[in-house]
Amino acid sequence: MKSYLDMDKKELAAELEAVRMQYEALKAVPRKLDMSRGKPNPTQLDLSMDMLALDPASLAHTAKGTDARNYGEPTGTEECKALFADVLGLEPKNIIVGGQSSLNLMYDSVVRALLLGVYGGSKPWGQQGPLKFLCPVPGYDRHFAITAEFGFELINIPLLPTGPDMDMVKKYVESDPAVKGMWCVPKYSNPSGITYSDETVRAIAALKPAADDFRVFWDNAYCVHGFEEQDDALLNIFDACREQGSEDMVYEFASTSKITFGGAGVSVLAASENNIKFIARQMGVQTIGHDKINQLRHVHFLKDAAGVRAHMKKHAAIVRPKFQCVLGALDAEIAPRGIAKWNRPHGGYFVAYEGLPGTATRCVALCKEAGLVLTPAGAPFPHGKDPQDNVIRIAPTFPSLSELEQAVELFCVAARLAALEVLTK
Amino acid sequence: MKSYLDMDKKELAAELEAVRMQYEALKAVPRKLDMSRGKPNPTQLDLSMDMLALDPASLAHTAKGTDARNYGEPTGTEECKALFADVLGLEPKNIIVGGQSSLNLMYDSVVRALLLGVYGGSKPWGQQGPLKFLCPVPGYDRHFAITAEFGFELINIPLLPTGPDMDMVKKYVESDPAVKGMWCVPKYSNPSGITYSDETVRAIAALKPAADDFRVFWDNAYCVHGFEEQDDALLNIFDACREQGSEDMVYEFASTSKITFGGAGVSVLAASENNIKFIARQMGVQTIGHDKINQLRHVHFLKDAAGVRAHMKKHAAIVRPKFQCVLGALDAEIAPRGIAKWNRPHGGYFVAYEGLPGTATRCVALCKEAGLVLTPAGAPFPHGKDPQDNVIRIAPTFPSLSELEQAVELFCVAARLAALEVLTK
Repeated sequence: MKSYLDMDKKELAAELEAVRMQYEALKAVPRKLDMSRGKPNPTQLDLSMDMLALDPASLAHTAKGTDARNYGEPTGTEECKALFADVLGLEPKNIIVGGQSSLNLMYDSVVRALLLGVYGGSKPWGQQGPLKFLCPVPGYDRHFAITAEFGFELINIPLLPTGPDMDMVKKYVESDPAVKGMWCVPKYSNPSGITYSDETVRAIAALKPAADDFRVFWDNAYCVHGFEEQDDALLNIFDACREQGSEDMVYEFASTSKITFGGAGVSVLAASENNIKFIARQMGVQTIGHDKINQLRHVHFLKDAAGVRAHMKKHAAIVRPKFQCVLGALDAEIAPRGIAKWNRPHGGYFVAYEGLPGTATRCVALCKEAGLVLTPAGAPFPHGKDPQDNVIRIAPTFPSLSELEQAVELFCVAARLAALEVLTK
Repeated sequence: MKSYLDMDKKELAAELEAVRMQYEALKAVPRKLDMSRGKPNPTQLDLSMDMLALDPASLAHTAKGTDARNYGEPTGTEECKALFADVLGLEPKNIIVGGQSSLNLMYDSVVRALLLGVYGGSKPWGQQGPLKFLCPVPGYDRHFAITAEFGFELINIPLLPTGPDMDMVKKYVESDPAVKGMWCVPKYSNPSGITYSDETVRAIAALKPAADDFRVFWDNAYCVHGFEEQDDALLNIFDACREQGSEDMVYEFASTSKITFGGAGVSVLAASENNIKFIARQMGVQTIGHDKINQLRHVHFLKDAAGVRAHMKKHAAIVRPKFQCVLGALDAEIAPRGIAKWNRPHGGYFVAYEGLPGTATRCVALCKEAGLVLTPAGAPFPHGKDPQDNVIRIAPTFPSLSELEQAVELFCVAARLAALEVLTK
């Protein structure tokens, strides 16, 4: 098989004609496929059904005797803090257990900073004129949407195989007090699948922000979501911060949305004791407490970090073949044509496909016309604007394996067609 | 028994001496009683234990087939919207189902208005200089705390037996564009227990605010919480608004916190379609959805408005004797002394005790010294400042009946002592 980049005009024209016919043939078969979001497949949700069958009496009280059914415990039950502390390698005193959505905790953390300020800051972010937020790209569209919603200038930071370009991060953070934060998905990054190197984590911990109220939003969404034998190792950011005395600079987030239920999990905000105390007071005005019964459900079902790891092996067995399916097809159909590169993640929910410039929007549109919904092109970039229009987020988990096979076949043909259209222009 | 107000100096001195001895005798017995918060008693929580024993399979999917365990449905499941619509006399299109805390929905509604603005408003509240919020008093401390947190000037509005003093409300709302909202607990008000009259509800609906972004925060927390045969009737505010074309002016809130579990219920925001669409978009940036499994639990357990009413009769059977205990003691021990007045609510969670000016703080302190925790004096007023220092919120539900009998005996003696100290000064 010849790389498209090595073909002459005539060869490209012939290939375009052939691939267009392939595409039209696929399009002629009605189908409704969805690879748009990083959602667990129903078989993954089935893994946690026993959590809904726990003895009701076991859910009524916490270990120390607090009535979980009544108001109170705004920062969470002790046992649920202990569970998350075990998973994240922290102490329970560093944990606030939230409701069902860690995105909600992140949004609320930005809101509190805007309206009320953060620990150690001289005044609320919202009283300091135009603000900036660093966005490693490609990244998670919902992160960027939060800071876009509140009018931050979003600054693209290239995400390298080792993590964000730390030279650029350092330059921005250390010179400009308007830079208030940075989004990070440090392990199995959404969508690149890369994990920050120890050096990157240490460089983040060593930042000396120009602002006295800068915060790293460390969304450790995929902390236990490896699906290969070899799990990426992420340095504990708080260990790195302790060496620098910068523990107050980081908010870590996680949730069980992709461990138990996307629709009914438990979320967590982890931070220094200074931050936790400061936020707990603010949060006490917002709510009398989050759902403690659901916290107990998770504790009884998952037990501890070892229990979580054992449970995640069951997810891995479902997820791994799907990534193999996608990567296998890309290796067979795209690699020889030389028109794209992609990551080979050991965990997480995504493959980031980087095609030729100017092909992503077209490829997504071609797939849509033929019955396959992909994440909109541009989504992994602030304001949905991919400067090169070449990144497509592939989310293999939600479809069944047989649906996925069809989807990937179609995707590869569409990607080749989009590339050929550009190359023959 | 002679009223203290009719006693001469000598009689008062003798009574003071006698009551002080009574108080010291009570104080000598160690006890630990709590009437501080409007929390359900564990026996009330036991009423909903079957909700935790539902067939797991029945919780996995909504009626229309959406997987409740996965992400999505940010405004709530259709069946849970229908349940709340039935209870509140609205349409499902007027409902957003939230997480576990309606206070959280209120806080977030204030936040969104501050940072992003409300439907029909020309700009966010937070960009309009100093802001004011109307606070009918006595009222709910956690309401006032939200608007205090964000720096609103809180304006006390007397709460009459018919609801807020509408002459004063009208004056403020219609003349001052800095007045952005008003807190209301329209049925079985916290803590007075009064229900707004139809005339008051119509007067609120007929307000012509000076601000284009004024909102009534209609916290219908006790909408189904009558415990007497005779349930107060509250006019549906949206019916009244429809006559005035002012539907966009009202946010209604409710929850199942005092129907099922204070620690694991479901909350609701009800509003006009304009508001719902506007808020749903904003909320879509904050979260991918609230806990749909818990929504289904509530739907399967409560079923519909009739089911809710039947369930609330079980609560009433537990709550009614407690209010009778409190009111009986006040009738016997306080009424003849002429030193206070109080409401006789048909529902809700509180009795508001209005003693002689300058006695509330002292009475609460006397109770505390003798082992009974009450809501802090002043709590029902903005910034905890009761201008007359005479209102005490009594919350009879949390203690058992036998604890309550002890608590109320102590309270009456402390209240008499505090009154006598003032009268003999």
